[in-house]
Amino acid sequence: MAKGDGGSKRGFGPTMAEVAALASVTKMTVSRVLRQPEKVNPETRKRVSSAMLKLGYVPNRLAGSLTSGATGLIAAIVPTLRHSIFADVLEGLSDVISEAGLDLFVSFSSYRTDVEESQIRSILERRPDALMLTGLTHSKASRDILRNFGIPVIETWETAEEPIDMMVGYSNRDAAHAMTGELVRAGYRRIAFVNGSSAGNERARLRAEGYLAALQEAGLPALPIHVVEHDADIRPEIGARALIAVRQQTPDVDAIFFTSDIFAVGAILACREQGIDVPNTIGIAGFHDLEIGRVVSPTLTTVHVPATEMGRKAGHMLLARLSGGRSNISRQNLGFSIILRESARRSRG
Amino acid sequence: MAKGDGGSKRGFGPTMAEVAALASVTKMTVSRVLRQPEKVNPETRKRVSSAMLKLGYVPNRLAGSLTSGATGLIAAIVPTLRHSIFADVLEGLSDVISEAGLDLFVSFSSYRTDVEESQIRSILERRPDALMLTGLTHSKASRDILRNFGIPVIETWETAEEPIDMMVGYSNRDAAHAMTGELVRAGYRRIAFVNGSSAGNERARLRAEGYLAALQEAGLPALPIHVVEHDADIRPEIGARALIAVRQQTPDVDAIFFTSDIFAVGAILACREQGIDVPNTIGIAGFHDLEIGRVVSPTLTTVHVPATEMGRKAGHMLLARLSGGRSNISRQNLGFSIILRESARRSRG
Repeated sequence: MAKGDGGSKRGFGPTMAEVAALASVTKMTVSRVLRQPEKVNPETRKRVSSAMLKLGYVPNRLAGSLTSGATGLIAAIVPTLRHSIFADVLEGLSDVISEAGLDLFVSFSSYRTDVEESQIRSILERRPDALMLTGLTHSKASRDILRNFGIPVIETWETAEEPIDMMVGYSNRDAAHAMTGELVRAGYRRIAFVNGSSAGNERARLRAEGYLAALQEAGLPALPIHVVEHDADIRPEIGARALIAVRQQTPDVDAIFFTSDIFAVGAILACREQGIDVPNTIGIAGFHDLEIGRVVSPTLTTVHVPATEMGRKAGHMLLARLSGGRSNISRQNLGFSIILRESARRSRG
Repeated sequence: MAKGDGGSKRGFGPTMAEVAALASVTKMTVSRVLRQPEKVNPETRKRVSSAMLKLGYVPNRLAGSLTSGATGLIAAIVPTLRHSIFADVLEGLSDVISEAGLDLFVSFSSYRTDVEESQIRSILERRPDALMLTGLTHSKASRDILRNFGIPVIETWETAEEPIDMMVGYSNRDAAHAMTGELVRAGYRRIAFVNGSSAGNERARLRAEGYLAALQEAGLPALPIHVVEHDADIRPEIGARALIAVRQQTPDVDAIFFTSDIFAVGAILACREQGIDVPNTIGIAGFHDLEIGRVVSPTLTTVHVPATEMGRKAGHMLLARLSGGRSNISRQNLGFSIILRESARRSRG
């Protein structure tokens, strides 16, 4: 116990021995008050508790975790916090697990599966009770390690493909298909798609598929997909540059669907500066339904994704698994919705 | 060691015993390869490493932490992630500490010092190597516990008052004073201030002081400060409602300084809907310099605060302390800047 106490070595406040001395009991009794209070008589328990309070003693949970096998820690890996959509997921997750008395441990992978893999290795050394991942694309080693390790794992943001364990999200293919279809219905005919890199990100790949399928169904030609390499650096300026590049390559483009609201808003601002009429000369659509799209003028047509709900649902599914019994539900499709605003509202062309 | 291994109890993958069996060594040898590899002969070390790799064995860091006293964990408490400004601070902190091989543990206090206090108690049970807090307002118990515990603690977002240990931020009083002064210079005379609640938040109190001082220096009357009770729920609609309330109370108000860009943007959108001319009928200013203020039309005049830099600096100051030697620098004022945009640009009245 002396070692487990952490004690005086790094100045972690008063030690268990000091509590024992003040309460005139043995260290074993102090330890028992912490771990099996029902086995200590009420008088003694009260004396020990007062001593702890008086000294400001903080028990060491590491020692308890080694014995019980549960750390009370839920780990989560998201690409970045610079994109507020992942902050929403984390808040949803945090709300649910903190109500259950569990704590959150966060890592940022910068959209890189190799970084994610090394984070998974490092995280598992801390023995979290469960893990939330972003997306379905992970290195083979990551998948193997997690399958082998056996703690509950939930993947988020997509529902296609086979999960490592559980998943909650929506169909990115269907969402991009629906948005492209709305642009067609609004009268646009030369519709471009500005996408993120699909390396390490199945969402980009599936959105591209949805875009292409919708145009094919409408009998319209697809334009070359413009891929921006952004890593975790998602700024409006990147959308503004993409607008210029797409218009140079396809001068008669009449609508651009961006894979992120932030890019779309950058394009709207660039159009305003250059005197390009949105939505009449060019329609603009985004993805995610961020607040920024409600604020820009013209307001942004976009895909609403259930970010906070994904985090909350992920939390509930992990808790259900932790509270025993393999839940029947290992996949949850939360859907999406198309938000029609001013930036792509045009009379039929 | 068997207990420390976490082993087979909760399905944490292969055990140390299985690694030992495959490598034809004792568990003690496996343990030595993990903790004192230089004491194991290279042949044996290689055999054990191959066995670990083959089985997908993940060492248990909890056991190591108990022995060494260092967990490699930096804890951070922020009010919420729904406000992207705190996400920026966390990203800055995370960038710095992850380069140093440390991990981040995050809690959300919802702007409540009582919640923060219980989180501090819970966090310390995990024995983090250091802690970052938001703001300087904490319960007396929180301050006592942290002083007693003795790990490096850094408070952020303000530099007035005495820190528990170290602090990095800027002067909220000076920032609000400077912004109010700019509104006066722009020709506004009936300037209102919309503030958050100052309970558990010295930033609100200090900004109010700065606003009042600037008006007094200009010989202008202060208007009643309008306080919005938002907790962690910071939405544009709250700013829109505040605009209406302030104009009802003070019909000749000609400028409103909001304590958050999000409120200010909500007010700008409400003005647009109601046909109120910004900046000529009413000037609007915000605080934080969020992207949303660059996107709204008219663009938002605001105070730029060094959010990412605070996180990075906090990380560097904690690392300096952890790497031994009490740093000479325990307070850092990173300053702020006033960003003049369209929403408060008016010819002298």
